[in-house]
This record gives sequence, structure tokens and C-alpha cells, in this order.
Amino acid sequence: MRLSCQQEDLQRALGYVSRAVSRKSTLPVLGNVLLSAEGGRLKLAATNLEIAITAWADATVEEEGTITVRSDLLTEFVASLPNDSVSIELDRRTLSVAVSCARSKAHIKGIGAEDFPTLASIGDTEPTARIDPAEFREAIGQVAFAAATDDSRPVLAGVLAEFEGASLTLAAADGFRLSVRRCDLVEPSRESLSIVVPARALQELARIIGDLEEPIDLAVTPNRSQLLVRAGSIEFLSRLIDGHFPDVRHIIPQTYGTRMVVSRDEFLAAARRAKLFAQSNNDVVRIQMNPGDGELDPGFATISAQAAETGDNEDHLEAQVEGPQAHIAFNGRYLTEVLSVMRSNEVALEMTSPNAAGVFKPVGSDDFTHVIMPMVIGT
Amino acid sequence: MRLSCQQEDLQRALGYVSRAVSRKSTLPVLGNVLLSAEGGRLKLAATNLEIAITAWADATVEEEGTITVRSDLLTEFVASLPNDSVSIELDRRTLSVAVSCARSKAHIKGIGAEDFPTLASIGDTEPTARIDPAEFREAIGQVAFAAATDDSRPVLAGVLAEFEGASLTLAAADGFRLSVRRCDLVEPSRESLSIVVPARALQELARIIGDLEEPIDLAVTPNRSQLLVRAGSIEFLSRLIDGHFPDVRHIIPQTYGTRMVVSRDEFLAAARRAKLFAQSNNDVVRIQMNPGDGELDPGFATISAQAAETGDNEDHLEAQVEGPQAHIAFNGRYLTEVLSVMRSNEVALEMTSPNAAGVFKPVGSDDFTHVIMPMVIGT
Repeated sequence: MRLSCQQEDLQRALGYVSRAVSRKSTLPVLGNVLLSAEGGRLKLAATNLEIAITAWADATVEEEGTITVRSDLLTEFVASLPNDSVSIELDRRTLSVAVSCARSKAHIKGIGAEDFPTLASIGDTEPTARIDPAEFREAIGQVAFAAATDDSRPVLAGVLAEFEGASLTLAAADGFRLSVRRCDLVEPSRESLSIVVPARALQELARIIGDLEEPIDLAVTPNRSQLLVRAGSIEFLSRLIDGHFPDVRHIIPQTYGTRMVVSRDEFLAAARRAKLFAQSNNDVVRIQMNPGDGELDPGFATISAQAAETGDNEDHLEAQVEGPQAHIAFNGRYLTEVLSVMRSNEVALEMTSPNAAGVFKPVGSDDFTHVIMPMVIGT
Repeated sequence: MRLSCQQEDLQRALGYVSRAVSRKSTLPVLGNVLLSAEGGRLKLAATNLEIAITAWADATVEEEGTITVRSDLLTEFVASLPNDSVSIELDRRTLSVAVSCARSKAHIKGIGAEDFPTLASIGDTEPTARIDPAEFREAIGQVAFAAATDDSRPVLAGVLAEFEGASLTLAAADGFRLSVRRCDLVEPSRESLSIVVPARALQELARIIGDLEEPIDLAVTPNRSQLLVRAGSIEFLSRLIDGHFPDVRHIIPQTYGTRMVVSRDEFLAAARRAKLFAQSNNDVVRIQMNPGDGELDPGFATISAQAAETGDNEDHLEAQVEGPQAHIAFNGRYLTEVLSVMRSNEVALEMTSPNAAGVFKPVGSDDFTHVIMPMVIGT
């Protein structure tokens, strides 16, 4: 292997793939990045066996070849170099990679590429679906945080992704809350398909597609074990979670007794303040909805928390309240998390009783629904 | 106590004093901030018994009084409020402080101010010295990092500050390195004085004076136990370290065998790269100085590191080398730390042998000297 490339191209590609490097695997090769000089490009890849990321840098290849080297060392070394031509040469006898740039030269000891896992590639596969990266990223941000973070039910650490016609619907639930978001596909899906993708993998994908503009391609391997993504010049792969995702649709209450519409920003600010005081009291944040007397007095809501040792607080919000006076309590973290990902100026909260789930919806869109189980605290 | 003030004034003052709050003291009152409404201002103060910070916010005081409340809770609550008028009222019976702003109201339980330590104040004391805040801050940054971070010799965890005529000289040493910086005072010191200030306290002071422009006043209490600082509308207090600071001047070599002058930026970049490779080899970074053949060929230096398991690297730097070829090795962290705080375009490194201390100096100024003991590594 002998090639040269520009430092900034190499640094960018390393920046992408190093996110998939395994930091604490017992297999040393998983801490390495695969370098592969082929067909006028340098391919870089890394995997932690849950996800894999592959990226390419333009290169002048004088001799093809492949090796793996420590990702952290190569990444930091390349980042320290000036933006100049970098030459990379493998000594096949010692498996040492010489990296030179300007007046710097390093030798980094490698591990043969034969020890690196073989990665499936989307290659020229016809994709299952195409989606706008900004919409997909927002949808992941609105859903993945609601997945379970423990491993007691592995399927709940995943996000259900349902492809159906021109829609992709993402859903996640951890037993205390449920988040569902529908997205438009750029072209209708070639087949109806339900898969469960690890939430962490989707969050990593969301980071990668953050600054892309062109639609990204999604495909599922024929054995339904992996999701393959082509996003610009990057390929992303995630294992899928095997198992039956609970039927979440019937969890969403279809009716309500009391509904309030409030400013998202004011609700979020009030929830954050209440969370400060709720910290010493199991994060209990109370919401009371008070209907008004008519059009000139639409009503108000109070958001409050109290802790015996610390103190208490209460915020008043203007609210359009429909239905009778009602109160409910939520975990303050769940409340601030959902309000943080909602994008509409106004949000609606619907409820039937202090013991039944509350439903959060954006005003002006049907694409997002979030359900939180209440905390039952007496009065 | 009953008063009102602007949210942004209160937030700014809390931002200053909360740096002095003790995070893990067994005395709850040290986790609190003192609020004291007096003479048309709200005074805020906090201390961890090593340092204390006092700041004032403009306020409309309707009733004087004083209380302490949890610093983290008050700071986060105030930060969450809109920039509007904040009213603060103490219920003297319950020691609860009501804080209201716009449509938010909180009650925070307090601890009586009589439990809060009494703090010395610079007040109207004639200061010992006056200094420009930018110069003082730079000097602290160039010296305090070289103080010891363990407690085996308490005096070495401090910075020696010598006031003499129109100069203040700061020095710190941890047994492996020594940093000395001379500053100009705005007015000659009223007395010659040597004190030892905890390095961490000076670093905190450097943060506080970061954006000030007016000279700051320094004074030492008559019993030589505390340093008092008046910086704009803030007062800062640090305990002093009792003990004899070693005579550091005789540690600085006065002659050299070989001296090189190099670009600070190139030297630092090369040292950082070498440090990456030195990590698996006790941080040993080697420097070799090679004299040239005359004016057209001033010489060069190599900065290198190697680790058996990882690899090696080497950088070539243009250098003006005076004296015979020579080599020396330093701890990579010590090397990058001193180069990071040097401000001149070119720096000089002087040495006599691989077993004797190396001396770093800016080119074009005599105000800064840094000495590092070499690592003796054979050849």
C-alpha cells in the first residue's frame, strides 16, 4: 500500500469512522481503523460490532493494499498535521505504516486487515427507501431518547422503524413513555417492512447525516439482520434487534377529558425551573390546568414542584384550557426531554385523569405524538 | 430583607461568587451563598475556606437583612428566569426566601447568616500594590501550572509572589520544573513582601479578572494570613500558605553549552505530536539540536518519540543552533505545557548536558524563565 492524500480529506474521513471504533473491546483490532487503498481512493472503516462506518478520502494510489492501525493514534496524529499532502506507505514485512507530511514522519504499528470483521456494504444495492436527511435526523431526535437504556428487555433499547408506502414511522418506548414520529419518504418504499434498530445506532447515524443535503438511501439485508445506509460518501451499517416490538399504537389514548394548548418555550422554561426543585423529591413535577371563563379568559396552567428540605416553586402560564379543571404529575426529566425535542410554537397536552397517561402533541401537525405515564402522588 | 434587582445583575454576581462555593464540605453553610441587603445594594458572598469571593448587584432595598441559601439551586433558578425585575423577600420566622420574577415564584429554604464564616474585606484599606489585570492574568497562567498538585510539600502547591519596588515576581516549582515570571506594577509596591498563594486560588482569581480593564488592588492582611484583592466590583480573598518557599533563583542555570532558537508554534506542534507517541513510553520526548555550517545553514532540531508497541515519530524544525550538537529528553506534558503558555514568536532552549536542566526563554523578553529537569534515558 502506497498513496498520498490531502490532510483535510483524511482528517474528515477519520472523524466519521472513528465514531464507530470500539473503545473497550478485548479484541484489539476493533480499536483500529481499516485503511484500504483501492481504485484511486483510500477507504477507511471502523466497527464496534453494533455499528460500522465506512468513509472514503480522495487519494493518489501508487500501490493498492490494506492494513488496520490504532484509530485514536492515527486520528490525533493526522489532526495535528498541517493541511498538506500526506503520504502513507505500508511496510508489509513489519506491518508498520509510515505516515509523512511536511517535516513530520511517523511509523504506526498495525494489525493485518485479515483480522478485521467483514462488513456488509450497500454497494449498488437498490435501496428500500430514500429519505431527506434533515427530516430523518429530526425524527431520530424526537424518538430515540424514549428508548430504554437498560437491557432488561432488549427490544425496548431499539427504535421500531416501519416503512409503509410513502411513510416511515419511528417509535420508541421504555415502559414509562412512548414517542412516535411519522416522516415522508422521498420515494415510496419498495416494500412494507418493520425493523428494530438500536437507539444508540440511530443517534450515531443522526450525527453523521447532520450536515448532508442529498437524500440518503436505506436498505435492509435480505436476512433482515442489518440496516445499511448510504449517506453522501459515507456508508453506515447497524445490526438490527431481533424480537417482537410491543404494539404501541393501542397505548396512545384516543380521547381526553381536559386539553391545554400552551407556548412550547414557556412550558419548557417552567418545566426546567420546576425540575430544579423536584430533584430532591423524586423529580415530581405537577401540572394543573385551569379553564377560563370564555374567549377573553382562556385559562391558565400552573407548573410546580416542592421538596421538603429545599423549597418549592410555581410558574403560571397562559393556556387555552378545554374541559374541566384537572391536574397531573410527571417525572420532570421526561417532561423537559419531550418539550426539548418538539418544534412547534404551541404544544397540546391531553389527559383524562391523574392516573392515566398524558399525551403531548404539536399544534399544527399530526406527525408527532408522545405519551408519558403520570406519577401518582395523591394530593 | 426585602429588595428587587435585575435578573442579569443577579445572575452575573452569582456567576462570580458561585466559583468559591464548597462542593463537598460537611458544613452545609459552605454550599450556600450569603445574601445581604445593605445600603442600596445586594451583597453576595461564598467561601470554601481557601478562597472567598464577594460581589454586589445593584438593588432597590426596602428592608435590610441577610440570609444564606443553596448556591446551586439559587444560581440555576435565577439563570432560568427572564431578564426582568426579581424580587427577593426573607421570611425571618421560617428562614425561607421568596424569589419572584415575571410569572415564576419560588421559596428556597435558607440557613441563618450567623453560621456563615466572617470574611476579611479589603474595604478602604490602602492596597499594597496595583497591577494591570491582563498582565497579572497572563503571569498567573505562565506560572501557576508548574506548582505541585499533591500535598507532600504544601508550600510547593503555592505560588511565591514577591513584591519589590515596581515589580511583582511570581514563581512556582514542583520538583521537576520551575516557572518564573516578572510583572510591572502600576505603582511601586508600598513595601517589599514575599507571600505564598495557593496556585488554585490564583487560577480562580485569573478567571475572575479575565474581562476587567481597570488596575486591580492587592493587599495582605497585617498578620500575613490572607491576600485580599479588589477587582472592579468584586472582592477576592485567599488564605496564604505558611512556610519557607525554596530559594528558586539558584536552580536556574546561568550558562549553557548549546542553545537553539525555534518558532514557538512549530516547536509546540512537534511536541504535541511526539507526546502522542510518547504516551506508551513514560511520556519521553527527545530533542536533538544540530548546528549548521554558517549563516546560510543555521541548523535544525529534531523532536521525536518512540514506544515499542505503538510506533515512533520525528519532526524536523528549522532552528538557529549555537554550540555543539546536543540532545536532551523531557516529559512530553511538561514540554507542551510550557510552550503553550509562552507568548513570543520565537523561543530559546538552553542546555549544558543531557543530565542537566533545560531552560526555556522567550526571545525578545527577559520576563519569563522556565526550567525543566531532563529525563535521563541513556542512548
